[in-house]
Amino acid sequence: MRALNYGTLLILALSLCAGEGNAQSGYGLWLGVKPASGERSASYKKQLSALLFPVTNEMDSIAKQELLSALNGLIGHTPKQVDAIQEEGTILIGTPSTLPHLAREAVAAHLPLMGTEGYGIYSITVLEKPATVILANTTNGILYGTYAFIGLLQRNEDISSLAITSQPKVELRLLNHWDNLDRTVERGYAGFSLWDWHRLPGYRDPRYTDYARANASIGINGTVLNNVNANALMLTTAYLEKAAALADVFRPYGIRVYLSARFSAPVELGGLENADPLNPAVQRWWADKVAEIYGHIPDFGGFLVKANSEGQPGPQNYGRSHADGANLLADVLKPHGGVVMWRAFVYEDTEPEDRAKQAYNEFKPLGGTFRDNVIIQVKNGPIDFQPREPFHPLFGAMPRSQLMTEFQITQEYLGFATHLVYLGTLFSETLQADTYADGPGSTVARIVDGSLNGQAITAIAGVANTGTAINWTGHPFAQANWYAYGRLAWDPDLDAAGIAEEWLRLTFGNDASFINALLPIMMRSRETTVNYMTPLGLHHLMGWDHHFGPGPWIRDKPRADWTSVYYHNASKDGIGFDRTATGSNALSQYSSEVRALFENPQTCPDEYLLWFHHLPWDFRMKSDETLWEALCRHYYNGVEEVAAMQTVWEAQRGKVNDTIFREVTDLLAMQHKEAKLWRDACVLYFQQFSDMPIPEGLEPPEHPLEYYEQLKFHFVPGI
Amino acid sequence: MRALNYGTLLILALSLCAGEGNAQSGYGLWLGVKPASGERSASYKKQLSALLFPVTNEMDSIAKQELLSALNGLIGHTPKQVDAIQEEGTILIGTPSTLPHLAREAVAAHLPLMGTEGYGIYSITVLEKPATVILANTTNGILYGTYAFIGLLQRNEDISSLAITSQPKVELRLLNHWDNLDRTVERGYAGFSLWDWHRLPGYRDPRYTDYARANASIGINGTVLNNVNANALMLTTAYLEKAAALADVFRPYGIRVYLSARFSAPVELGGLENADPLNPAVQRWWADKVAEIYGHIPDFGGFLVKANSEGQPGPQNYGRSHADGANLLADVLKPHGGVVMWRAFVYEDTEPEDRAKQAYNEFKPLGGTFRDNVIIQVKNGPIDFQPREPFHPLFGAMPRSQLMTEFQITQEYLGFATHLVYLGTLFSETLQADTYADGPGSTVARIVDGSLNGQAITAIAGVANTGTAINWTGHPFAQANWYAYGRLAWDPDLDAAGIAEEWLRLTFGNDASFINALLPIMMRSRETTVNYMTPLGLHHLMGWDHHFGPGPWIRDKPRADWTSVYYHNASKDGIGFDRTATGSNALSQYSSEVRALFENPQTCPDEYLLWFHHLPWDFRMKSDETLWEALCRHYYNGVEEVAAMQTVWEAQRGKVNDTIFREVTDLLAMQHKEAKLWRDACVLYFQQFSDMPIPEGLEPPEHPLEYYEQLKFHFVPGI
Repeated sequence: MRALNYGTLLILALSLCAGEGNAQSGYGLWLGVKPASGERSASYKKQLSALLFPVTNEMDSIAKQELLSALNGLIGHTPKQVDAIQEEGTILIGTPSTLPHLAREAVAAHLPLMGTEGYGIYSITVLEKPATVILANTTNGILYGTYAFIGLLQRNEDISSLAITSQPKVELRLLNHWDNLDRTVERGYAGFSLWDWHRLPGYRDPRYTDYARANASIGINGTVLNNVNANALMLTTAYLEKAAALADVFRPYGIRVYLSARFSAPVELGGLENADPLNPAVQRWWADKVAEIYGHIPDFGGFLVKANSEGQPGPQNYGRSHADGANLLADVLKPHGGVVMWRAFVYEDTEPEDRAKQAYNEFKPLGGTFRDNVIIQVKNGPIDFQPREPFHPLFGAMPRSQLMTEFQITQEYLGFATHLVYLGTLFSETLQADTYADGPGSTVARIVDGSLNGQAITAIAGVANTGTAINWTGHPFAQANWYAYGRLAWDPDLDAAGIAEEWLRLTFGNDASFINALLPIMMRSRETTVNYMTPLGLHHLMGWDHHFGPGPWIRDKPRADWTSVYYHNASKDGIGFDRTATGSNALSQYSSEVRALFENPQTCPDEYLLWFHHLPWDFRMKSDETLWEALCRHYYNGVEEVAAMQTVWEAQRGKVNDTIFREVTDLLAMQHKEAKLWRDACVLYFQQFSDMPIPEGLEPPEHPLEYYEQLKFHFVPGI
Repeated sequence: MRALNYGTLLILALSLCAGEGNAQSGYGLWLGVKPASGERSASYKKQLSALLFPVTNEMDSIAKQELLSALNGLIGHTPKQVDAIQEEGTILIGTPSTLPHLAREAVAAHLPLMGTEGYGIYSITVLEKPATVILANTTNGILYGTYAFIGLLQRNEDISSLAITSQPKVELRLLNHWDNLDRTVERGYAGFSLWDWHRLPGYRDPRYTDYARANASIGINGTVLNNVNANALMLTTAYLEKAAALADVFRPYGIRVYLSARFSAPVELGGLENADPLNPAVQRWWADKVAEIYGHIPDFGGFLVKANSEGQPGPQNYGRSHADGANLLADVLKPHGGVVMWRAFVYEDTEPEDRAKQAYNEFKPLGGTFRDNVIIQVKNGPIDFQPREPFHPLFGAMPRSQLMTEFQITQEYLGFATHLVYLGTLFSETLQADTYADGPGSTVARIVDGSLNGQAITAIAGVANTGTAINWTGHPFAQANWYAYGRLAWDPDLDAAGIAEEWLRLTFGNDASFINALLPIMMRSRETTVNYMTPLGLHHLMGWDHHFGPGPWIRDKPRADWTSVYYHNASKDGIGFDRTATGSNALSQYSSEVRALFENPQTCPDEYLLWFHHLPWDFRMKSDETLWEALCRHYYNGVEEVAAMQTVWEAQRGKVNDTIFREVTDLLAMQHKEAKLWRDACVLYFQQFSDMPIPEGLEPPEHPLEYYEQLKFHFVPGI
């Protein structure tokens, strides 16, 4: 017994190392395993004394290893592996075809609710012995179910009466990597691209496996490897072989590879005269190319396309529509089972009346004209991933076409990887927004999950925040955004707070005082950032080009809608973008219920006030402040809230490892400094027009406006 | 006792995780700690039962923590911490002022041999009790001594009768980072720059500490943060604050920060009309700038300068000499204690007669004219870090000036981070080369360590191979080159095989069968690469620009000396660069003894044959083969040797962790493929001129020459 103890602990030692990666560094993400609390450890040992897990393929084998490794870490013990139920506390894992008859019978009724990727976890009694069963129709379901079960154990949950059935509400749950072939990442703030293209396909960096594992653990089942601003080289044989090597690593984790396709590739690679989607030579070129791709990657997922947007080539170059372009690719992918995700992030090359209206204007008329393997990929809001935007008006406007939403996990406009901003709330805000497209309850989530319009294919995309940083995301708390995205992709109706708590516990352990301190910070953090960056519906105030720091003064650029003044419209007479009928009337793109809520500045929620309205500085807010006072208060509150976060964090010393404690301390200090920079620059800038004093009691900005305007930032990452 | 076991093992578990970082990934480098073998573990426990280590500063504290953490890992036990010798097996660590009188007395005689950074480790008897003492004159010595002692333990050495005194033979032991401010690394193959400039100074990435720790463990005491092709922005206040944050992290590890200075900074940053070193305004600007730097970094090391080389600005732009330029900076650094490392890697902007002669031609006449805080930084060979070069003729040619050598740890010309090439042998080959400058035994090592010419300041530089890769160096075995460089910087006369064995044992453990299998591979690996790339003294045959793969056909570029044909001179009449009196007479730059060895093709070692001689294809080699046959044999042997490495590695399955086993397997397969590419391309290319068949029994190349010539490689890293 003593000898066993020794061996057990050695296994524990190794398991901690192997399982957590560099535990101090955050490399292990939310998959770290710590010894279970004494009481739980004892019950888990009893409840998990034997394992019946018939392994039929590599994916099964991964699931089994994950469970064994997690149990080692949790209870310093691996269950006896058995072929039949012999004792109390057996855990049975399998599909209907691999599980013992009696166990299967006990829970088979749930199978129809599991689909092709879902799973069930049940406490049952077989032959009068309590047991736990993880059941699924497929191996993929087994893998997801195992990760879910491990999560329960990591969170030290009671597993004595489990009855969980879960299947993803969205079929294609994707990360979009804006990774260039030179390994820079457009809008990447966690280092550089994970893909070492030069050494692919020969060298399979072990990190690829760890990436796949992390994604699988939260249900992500697809990844677009390259930037939507795509290089045609990605479609050459040499690069397809590289992509295929990644696909081979990802496959046993249930992750399919997709590629961003450059629309003009037939010209650039094929030497054709044009890339006109109606040109038969172009159609042939794509058919051949797609066949080649499937030769390399038999389960290739399909294409993501950014066309006729921000200088990218597209069908409009040849007088064709987005539907012509998307359908061209859809037709050649169809025989292989691939899909086209066609981005709706478009706006005119010439200066538009209101950029917020463009996507709707271009796409709505095309409703119903896309092939059944095309999905229109729509950003959460109508501009561009701003700290807050109302939901995109295309949601609900194209019931006869398939829509998906695109979130940005990387924090392009939310403080890069420097600011602690939990995005679960942002994602949920969009998903739970009611379009009223088919009456109340027509949420964006119900469009994304296909239930509102009976979509055949459902999908969701998140622009990844991963990079070469040891901790993957640059900020330890930015890992939560990857996690939250995955969880909401699985079920868009999950609660953002519940996800945050899950993540906290998986990442930092189950210390209630720590969770209770950090959860409110995470839940508030996005609003905090909105406050010090773009409160009250303001948007697009950031620095030019690199998007770092405040730039409300940005004007006189090649395009008006790439400036800040275009969006805030500040002048002596007021501030805000009039999108009502007296202005651009972008509001007309929403349903009448939404319109009614937003069009009256008296009823419009403060959060969207200056998004939809241009209002005088002395406009009387619901709070009875003037608009100017409210604006100042939000900016100042934002900074104060960061200071409050610092105070709370300081009190956690000793509750997290020293490395991460110091990292977050550093980052919060930077966030505070940058929040002040935003506040002071914006308040001073707008004060020129309001001509009103900063309310009493608020500290005056440190420098005059000119100081902020002349600041230069070099080599800002993410361009 | 049983309870203790339990606690002990838990500590072991945590120590393994914290100490090794991600043990699977290689993040922990050579600093990983595995449990000592049973016998050793028992004796270590006895010999290290108590620790007397008076901590007086942060550096001491680091040394102490390192020792405690290592002992946890090794013997699952931390020694009792004591104030006085009470029992057998005390380890005493300190300086003369902190150690107990009796212990100090026992070993004080060695102190004069330790200098300011050396240390001694001795087995002594105090009060009739056996003890171990680590003694040094300074805290830096304590840190180095502690790392050396931990190394002994990691290698499970007998520590019962230690009598080690060691001090570095070279004072400034530097890494040169060719890191750009956008985080790309010129000639970096392990990802991107470790320095996250954007988030400095606020965010101190924990990796900076791990970097400092790794360097300190092998005695590196300085780091030049930015590329020698320098951006003047590095000298702006904003970037100096960032550099200062790094210096703060590195300082307690005994590492000083240096910067590459752009010579034209007074124009670019100061708005001056010129950067003429004799212009008093320029002198003032530099004096002010240096004073500012020392305000930020009180122990700033000094400047590294690449001037008038490959387009960089320098004193020659104003008709001044390298000495004028170097002395300008030396004068302003002098009051602060800083040095100037002035690179001798220069060649004329116009097409030269022989690039190999340029540095000598420009610098030798300046001998004796440099200030006493200037060191001329000379690459190991006269061209540019080729797989093999003879030693640089400047070594021995400037006895009245201070010289240092620059090695390239990053494998620009040796297969990037893809090829397993141990560079300890390359470094040693240069260091042990005899210049005969002051008679036999006038080795490069004796110039570098200052003993030949009585140099006041001694220094050595290695161009770093570190990057954002989890394992730091891209190839697990490339870690050995960082390690070997550090060890040879400490003592240029160390044996390359001894260093390799040390590294193998520290990194992979003490399994003799593994060491015995891998040591010969490491020792042979550089010769193997020379064989498949540039045998028999050939050089500069690589691909254009990115330097990837073979490019013997490179011609017709803006400068002849940036082509391959310039160097190999292959034609119907033969191959090679005639550097004897009938050719460029570069040989005249060497001492008569060296000249005598090299100038006669019959005595010239095969390794340098075509470096110094242009010879007919049927030239009869010492082996009695024709030159053509020998050339083919070397190319083919190179590839076969890689295949042999693969076989040996395959037999190590199970002796290293699975992750690293698979990584090295992948990398060796790539190396084999690339070695074949080199062989086939070069043999076919040269065959055009030799008009002779590939010797019988050798497999013919897979493709015709045209195939190799048309290969295009995109986005090759390291430019």
